Amino acid sequence: MKVLITGGAGFIGARLARTLLARETLAGSRVEQLVLADQFAPPDDLTRDKRVRALTGPLLGHCAGFAAERFDGVFHLASAVSGECELDFDLGMRSNLDSTRALLDALRAAGNTPRIVFSSSVAVFGPDPGVPLPAIVADDTLPAPQTSYGTQKLMCEQLIADMTRKGFIDGRAARLMTVTVRPGKPNAAASSFFSGVIREPLAGVEAICPVDASVSHPVSSPARTIDALIRLYEASREQLNGRLALNLPALNVTVQQMLDALEAVAGAKVRALVRFQRDERIAGIVANWPQGASSARANALGLKADDSFEDIIRQYIEDTTR
Amino acid sequence: MKVLITGGAGFIGARLARTLLARETLAGSRVEQLVLADQFAPPDDLTRDKRVRALTGPLLGHCAGFAAERFDGVFHLASAVSGECELDFDLGMRSNLDSTRALLDALRAAGNTPRIVFSSSVAVFGPDPGVPLPAIVADDTLPAPQTSYGTQKLMCEQLIADMTRKGFIDGRAARLMTVTVRPGKPNAAASSFFSGVIREPLAGVEAICPVDASVSHPVSSPARTIDALIRLYEASREQLNGRLALNLPALNVTVQQMLDALEAVAGAKVRALVRFQRDERIAGIVANWPQGASSARANALGLKADDSFEDIIRQYIEDTTR
Repeated sequence: MKVLITGGAGFIGARLARTLLARETLAGSRVEQLVLADQFAPPDDLTRDKRVRALTGPLLGHCAGFAAERFDGVFHLASAVSGECELDFDLGMRSNLDSTRALLDALRAAGNTPRIVFSSSVAVFGPDPGVPLPAIVADDTLPAPQTSYGTQKLMCEQLIADMTRKGFIDGRAARLMTVTVRPGKPNAAASSFFSGVIREPLAGVEAICPVDASVSHPVSSPARTIDALIRLYEASREQLNGRLALNLPALNVTVQQMLDALEAVAGAKVRALVRFQRDERIAGIVANWPQGASSARANALGLKADDSFEDIIRQYIEDTTR
Repeated sequence: MKVLITGGAGFIGARLARTLLARETLAGSRVEQLVLADQFAPPDDLTRDKRVRALTGPLLGHCAGFAAERFDGVFHLASAVSGECELDFDLGMRSNLDSTRALLDALRAAGNTPRIVFSSSVAVFGPDPGVPLPAIVADDTLPAPQTSYGTQKLMCEQLIADMTRKGFIDGRAARLMTVTVRPGKPNAAASSFFSGVIREPLAGVEAICPVDASVSHPVSSPARTIDALIRLYEASREQLNGRLALNLPALNVTVQQMLDALEAVAGAKVRALVRFQRDERIAGIVANWPQGASSARANALGLKADDSFEDIIRQYIEDTTR
């Protein structure tokens, strides 16, 4: 089979690619070709694999050619992130809505009803003066995005649901939780500290936590997130029971629990490298986020949240030291 | 002020235009210019009014010029209907999503944050195997459209909410109920009989009712629908309390109640012109529709449903005989 990963050179995309290449099959078929489309070239370990083909450049430019590719399966992970979309509305519309629509149109034109897993986000949920956000958002919580990013993700969820109902594609949408611990450097995302307060101390560097220790948030490790994307791909339409968008499993943790876990895994000295210094802008954004998420439908498919934040930290240490 | 009505030559649009011209003001300002954009020319009584300007042709072609028009207010009623969108997916995407986006982009480019009332639909709601449709859909019922039309309306609701949050426009979305009694001829819409079983007998013509008398449905008279659109336009952002999409008030009636009302208003002989002949295709579509709607948020703005179906029939008789 021929599989496309958009955003295939990114953190989640490249890791998903490695997992698919290692397991060799997807939904019972052999992965013969893996096309990684991204703005940037994928890491060398991936391009060295004979099954991998890289497509570099803006997704929108590649979509016209995708009809002729006749992919069997697609993981559509490419996306402008929340902060970018909030700063530049048109960029977000182009990168997230127009590119997704062009991709879906190409998959429809191919005529083989390809299966596609779309990475949506917990950002579809938001507080609404009329309908307060529940502390724990469920699959059937009324979405009310408070960012352009969340709006664009929700619009794409609906387009995918309708195009699937019409038989053009076989779509499903996974609402990803905040993935932590991400390697690399802090970025401009308001959620960046959810990785930073673990990653920096483990590297012997001080980290600033911009919110109170009582802040609670739904998180998922990279490994569990990728496992969930694959299992959602492999689920039958019957198992999905009609609705196509679902919450991925989340470990709902407070910052305090994250830091307790850090101390348990790496010791008090490492934990002491985290300093609380409230940032009103970030704290204000985070206050609008769900405190946790439930995932009854994903759980029914056999998907599971991480067992503990200690496990998430150990996974990060293992990933970065091997 | 300068007001645009898209779909301004249609049944609701032309009636809204007449109402605005007669009341002379909108939200406290004088209506100096009323632009009616539609595929067809508006009725003569409208074009004779000096305040009216007609723009004929596809909406998408007009939008580029709208930035320079700097409308103060817009009623965006133009839409491909449910049946068309289901037969021709691309037509629906173009007419409902692309045209709305082009209109919103032009309003944003104008730079004066125009107010816009968008006609969404009760079709955003649908049965969902995971989350059964409640008999009465409320403002905060989870939308799950089962048609391309409903999907496109929902996507537009969300785009309008986000562009309003960004300060580009001042938007609000009204989920219209089935408007009855519509004048004219039966059309291909599955809901056509909700007008036909009243209109045809009143004209001395037999009408076929394709569903059981027990079928319940949310309806609204043309007059109440137009009153609601105007009141929603005139509501302040504070009154809307954050969320922008709301159900318009509905009279929830069964077909039996409609026919009892027909007999009460027009007599048993007229009522006897309705013959039940089940149409499985139409009955199947209607079975997926809400049995009724509530409208707490619209009610809080002072909007009201029709008092009775007798009133709705009397309104139709008055409209068509004067």
